[in-house]
Amino acid sequence: MTYRARIAALLSACAVCAFTPALAASPPAMSQKELEAKFDAQIDPAEMGGWLKLLAAEPNHVGSVHDKSNAEWIAAQLKSWGWDARIETFEVLYPTPISEALELTGGPGAGFKATLTEPPVPGDLPTYTKDALPAYVAFQGDGDVTAPLVYVNYGMPEDYLALERMGVSVKGKIAIARYGGGWRGLKPLLAQMHGAAGSIIYSDPKDDGYATDDVYPKGAARPPHGFQRGSVADMPIYPGDPLTPGVGSTKDAKRLDRKDAVTILKIPCLPISYADAQVLLSSLDGPVAPAGWRGALPITYHVGGSASGGQVHIAVKSDWSLKTLYDVVGTLKGKDAPNEWIVRGNHHDGWVMGASDPLSGQIALLAEAKAMGVLVKAGWRPGRTIVYTSWDGEEPMLLGSTEWAETHAEELKAKALVYINSDGNGRGFFRAEGSHAFQHFVNQVTADVKDPETGVSVRDRARARLTVTASEPGASEAVKAEGKIVADPSRDLPLGPLGSGSDYSAFLQHLGLASIDFGYGGEGESGGVYHSLYDDYEHHSRFVDPGFAYDATLARTVGRAVMRLADADLPVQRYGDFADTVSTYLDEVKKLATTKSDEAKNQARLLAGNAYALAADPTMAHANPAPMAQSPTTNFAPLEGAVAKLKTSAAAFDAALAAKGAGLSKPQKARLDAVIRPLDQTLLRPEGLPGRAWYMNMVYAPGRFTGYGAKTLPGVREALEERRFEDAQRYVGITGLALSAYAGELDKATAIVNGG
Amino acid sequence: MTYRARIAALLSACAVCAFTPALAASPPAMSQKELEAKFDAQIDPAEMGGWLKLLAAEPNHVGSVHDKSNAEWIAAQLKSWGWDARIETFEVLYPTPISEALELTGGPGAGFKATLTEPPVPGDLPTYTKDALPAYVAFQGDGDVTAPLVYVNYGMPEDYLALERMGVSVKGKIAIARYGGGWRGLKPLLAQMHGAAGSIIYSDPKDDGYATDDVYPKGAARPPHGFQRGSVADMPIYPGDPLTPGVGSTKDAKRLDRKDAVTILKIPCLPISYADAQVLLSSLDGPVAPAGWRGALPITYHVGGSASGGQVHIAVKSDWSLKTLYDVVGTLKGKDAPNEWIVRGNHHDGWVMGASDPLSGQIALLAEAKAMGVLVKAGWRPGRTIVYTSWDGEEPMLLGSTEWAETHAEELKAKALVYINSDGNGRGFFRAEGSHAFQHFVNQVTADVKDPETGVSVRDRARARLTVTASEPGASEAVKAEGKIVADPSRDLPLGPLGSGSDYSAFLQHLGLASIDFGYGGEGESGGVYHSLYDDYEHHSRFVDPGFAYDATLARTVGRAVMRLADADLPVQRYGDFADTVSTYLDEVKKLATTKSDEAKNQARLLAGNAYALAADPTMAHANPAPMAQSPTTNFAPLEGAVAKLKTSAAAFDAALAAKGAGLSKPQKARLDAVIRPLDQTLLRPEGLPGRAWYMNMVYAPGRFTGYGAKTLPGVREALEERRFEDAQRYVGITGLALSAYAGELDKATAIVNGG
Repeated sequence: MTYRARIAALLSACAVCAFTPALAASPPAMSQKELEAKFDAQIDPAEMGGWLKLLAAEPNHVGSVHDKSNAEWIAAQLKSWGWDARIETFEVLYPTPISEALELTGGPGAGFKATLTEPPVPGDLPTYTKDALPAYVAFQGDGDVTAPLVYVNYGMPEDYLALERMGVSVKGKIAIARYGGGWRGLKPLLAQMHGAAGSIIYSDPKDDGYATDDVYPKGAARPPHGFQRGSVADMPIYPGDPLTPGVGSTKDAKRLDRKDAVTILKIPCLPISYADAQVLLSSLDGPVAPAGWRGALPITYHVGGSASGGQVHIAVKSDWSLKTLYDVVGTLKGKDAPNEWIVRGNHHDGWVMGASDPLSGQIALLAEAKAMGVLVKAGWRPGRTIVYTSWDGEEPMLLGSTEWAETHAEELKAKALVYINSDGNGRGFFRAEGSHAFQHFVNQVTADVKDPETGVSVRDRARARLTVTASEPGASEAVKAEGKIVADPSRDLPLGPLGSGSDYSAFLQHLGLASIDFGYGGEGESGGVYHSLYDDYEHHSRFVDPGFAYDATLARTVGRAVMRLADADLPVQRYGDFADTVSTYLDEVKKLATTKSDEAKNQARLLAGNAYALAADPTMAHANPAPMAQSPTTNFAPLEGAVAKLKTSAAAFDAALAAKGAGLSKPQKARLDAVIRPLDQTLLRPEGLPGRAWYMNMVYAPGRFTGYGAKTLPGVREALEERRFEDAQRYVGITGLALSAYAGELDKATAIVNGG
Repeated sequence: MTYRARIAALLSACAVCAFTPALAASPPAMSQKELEAKFDAQIDPAEMGGWLKLLAAEPNHVGSVHDKSNAEWIAAQLKSWGWDARIETFEVLYPTPISEALELTGGPGAGFKATLTEPPVPGDLPTYTKDALPAYVAFQGDGDVTAPLVYVNYGMPEDYLALERMGVSVKGKIAIARYGGGWRGLKPLLAQMHGAAGSIIYSDPKDDGYATDDVYPKGAARPPHGFQRGSVADMPIYPGDPLTPGVGSTKDAKRLDRKDAVTILKIPCLPISYADAQVLLSSLDGPVAPAGWRGALPITYHVGGSASGGQVHIAVKSDWSLKTLYDVVGTLKGKDAPNEWIVRGNHHDGWVMGASDPLSGQIALLAEAKAMGVLVKAGWRPGRTIVYTSWDGEEPMLLGSTEWAETHAEELKAKALVYINSDGNGRGFFRAEGSHAFQHFVNQVTADVKDPETGVSVRDRARARLTVTASEPGASEAVKAEGKIVADPSRDLPLGPLGSGSDYSAFLQHLGLASIDFGYGGEGESGGVYHSLYDDYEHHSRFVDPGFAYDATLARTVGRAVMRLADADLPVQRYGDFADTVSTYLDEVKKLATTKSDEAKNQARLLAGNAYALAADPTMAHANPAPMAQSPTTNFAPLEGAVAKLKTSAAAFDAALAAKGAGLSKPQKARLDAVIRPLDQTLLRPEGLPGRAWYMNMVYAPGRFTGYGAKTLPGVREALEERRFEDAQRYVGITGLALSAYAGELDKATAIVNGG
């Protein structure tokens, strides 16, 4: 069955069972302010810390005993707080390691074997090592290879261009890349695309080890033998179970053969620590690595790849059986519009204990749910239905959220208004990314949440941070431009666009459901235990969020947003913000088209003048860059027209709602809701993005070659970046159609507001 | 006696004794092309390598036996090649170490003593260590201090601003800075200005050690126990002997008391190796150093400064007696205009052997001199007098060139047309900085010199390098702008402006003599032995310039320039280039005025909104930045008018010379030369720069707080940078007067060309 046929065959199982909360006797109505004060009063950081200790007590990877028991505990808590809650299971392909090996077989240091488990460190809790996964990345390809080692820096596209210029090939070799510079999964993928036989990823101390902070447990940074696990499935093609693209991995779902699942890599890959990487990298000869490639190990970084340097044996064998996911879904049924849903989620699986990632966000979600339960008992009931989800299997590739979203696609498209996500959380500054029609709403919410360290609103603190950062020497042009916007206190803080890397992806990019991702962070250096054994309760409570103050603040923020959305009498969206933001994206892609055209012309001139060879050091191997295709002129008129129309329609709607919203009748409001709720689905186009049809949103996508990083107007932008100029022209039209459809629906909404 | 009075009291000793070369019987006249081919044929890289081996055989610091014998050998060689050559001596203050100590007295690692000598490394020549100076920086202040250690990154002004924001003071403490980011001498000076009691400078492996290349002798980079000596006199006030500012240090010169010599520092300072620095830096606690401060040592860099971290004892005692300098001066008397001089120099003293710095340039100078001697024997005689100088004491603070220039100021002002300099040289790409009227001339010369590695002209190769660099990802806006200029093969490669750091300073910035500095480099990483024991013949011939190919190319380049200038029938200058360049400098300072005004307004707004405090991590010490003075509007009209006039006058002169130059009579040419030769002296203003009157050139100066780095239109630019707005306005006028005077002289020259 083809991918699109699978979508058509979607089961229409009910995602959320109808439920009426046990209401207390109806009390006098509370104002929104009173309600939120009552909500805030329920958020208890100490209690949240207790939950974290419990949830993070043992390893929580998919299939672990503790991850399942956490799901059961979460469901039981929700029930005890008055929610209708249940566990929904899926059967997903999730490989686990059977055997693995990594050793130096030739060159300096031959005989060295990498340590593929993380040792306990003095000062941490030693029992935490029990049952932890070894060094492993999920969805790598099993294999057993011995070959020369090549250092490829971050292993990103530009690094392979640099290797080409150095005359170094990874063909048939094992590529060692450091973490950072782009999403993990691209490192083995790009190595594979360039012909490598194996892949190694290590954490350089420059990026999250001793160069950034004292190492754990003295400080927060990665200790020498720590490594980063993670997924390397080819998520930019589609997330979720590789065997069931577009449909839910229910027990009886039709599955692809594993060999046909394009998101599973073909070459073996292992993550290692910097203590081990130092031995491997020291074995390399060949050219000295370029300045930007050098990490903080006390060695001269060489590129390697020769027969006299390091030769490596890598072997990985996985258990490819299906495993069970445990998603928890809880609901508070809406009193006015039970078929309008506000969906909020955070995952509960971790790579090991996962105290910061994801359980710090999970305890915020729990605190919100408990507080809402108390409010319900005190007489409040949301206007719309609130759906709280605790996902399993996010870490291996957004499995729990994607399979649930795919399973319940039709119902979600019919009922859901927004998906609100959080994930790992920490001390510091508020940040949010999301659908830009909600930008003003997010600003309103965060203006009313107090920062625990300074006492001002979290929005004011974030504004201060952005303005000061923009004024620091060396600030980039983009940061300076943002600083100029936020320096005006009457203007909203901009939302960033959503790429991927957490559970909103299926909702936003496959179902066309507006989404927002909330979080705090930016104080202290706490990235060093990411996806390692050391991301535990000790570490989180000592370094990432002492006193759980910001985990509690996340609960106050998201809970507020959820309740306001559930009770909103009129749409909270401001479409002018969306139109203005899309307009800046259009400016960017138009500039990009010029840049790409200039680049090709410039390169042709340099090649014609033999400039690359003359500029090179003749004592080193050197190759000219591959000639770029010359750019045809892209005609942006269809997109320009659509954006102009969008701006007009958005302004008309915003003005109409401001002027006449308060006077709308109940039936008018219901008709308005029916147009607004599914509005973002107009951004979906059935053809999806080139080569990755699962991603259908024409405004927001994760980058094909950035992974987590967002690409806006992706059909056009990525085509230009990759010099696929026919695609670029085609997606100018397709994206224009999506935006025109969006504007058209807005016009309908405006007509309703205007009494039509 | 005041400084200016000293200038007035300048001795008018004859710098160059009249001399007639022993001419062979007059042969048929050679074309310029034939002459240069003959010249090139005399340049013998193998012979140059032999000279290098001899000159670099033993330590060559001022006062060493070998430095003096090198001077005598150079003078003898010149004589043997038919030059009139002699040694001119000066008696200068040059301190040498009597005793020194550096140890950790408290904190982790207490008891550690730094190694203050450089060990031989296996694979290098062991006898080379004999008589080398220990770790030492000249003109530090003697002292004996024990105090807490503070890490100050590069120790530049912006680092102290960052420390202020971190709430860390260096008052009464010992500041350890790494080399790089600005001139060495500023590090102890700025530490002293901020109240530090002592100063340490170390070479971080990130900047020139193992992070950049394999360490010597496997590769070219600094070995663990290597350190960088150097001068820390406050050169931006004035270079040369601290006791004789503005006048030559002849035997009977009137000298300042040492305590009144403002260029001598007050606090003790020592340079150390990174092997030793690692122990010192590991002893620090306090805040983790900001990201940009972290080097490549395998440690977490902390800022320190606390009573619980490292405490250091530093003690230095110097012998402050006068030492003798040995400048070598040789001449080839001009046949047509013996009183018009082309002066060319390169120093011969080194911090230890000094093979690359400076002897690689010295052997080029010798090869030129020998080749010209051969040409003279074959019948050529230069039209103008050629003066070749081999300076002593450049390293301790441009002593030999400055004292000679000050001694012979009046004669040089009357006779010299240009000063051409070189210094350490290496493999790679041509580069030159200098007076911009010579930009086109430099391009003409370098178009006729062949690159030894690629066979194209050195200019074409430099152009290829600049265009490719500008096309690389991450190129700065300035590099891209330059790339755009040089991409047009009909346009000249721009000259950079001269700051300081080599022997042209006194000529250009004190006497107003147009100057050019030539060199090659940029291939391989060879900075790691700079000013260390390991800058020896082995290192130079293996890594910096194998086969002495580029040392020979330097000789072919500079020799060609000297001969063309000596024989030029008409001025080679193109004043439009100077005017256009000054015009871009004016644009820069106008933009700077706006930036500085915006900065102050922005900071005031951030302070008023308490943004710095809100943006800070409350768990760390933090202070607001000191409030900036608000900028008044600078009126640039006087400078704008002068630059407009300069452009007109320059264009008129260039056009007149091109149209009518060939038809000028001999007396007209002589009158023209008399106007053109001293033209750059109009750029001098007697008041000099604020706080440093020795620097009188209003277009080119070393930065007060960059040291070697150039500041153009320095009176205005530095005043704006430092928010001295009254000075800025005053120097708009003063600089405008200088440029107007320059334009006025050009008008006189134009009138002569036009038959006036």
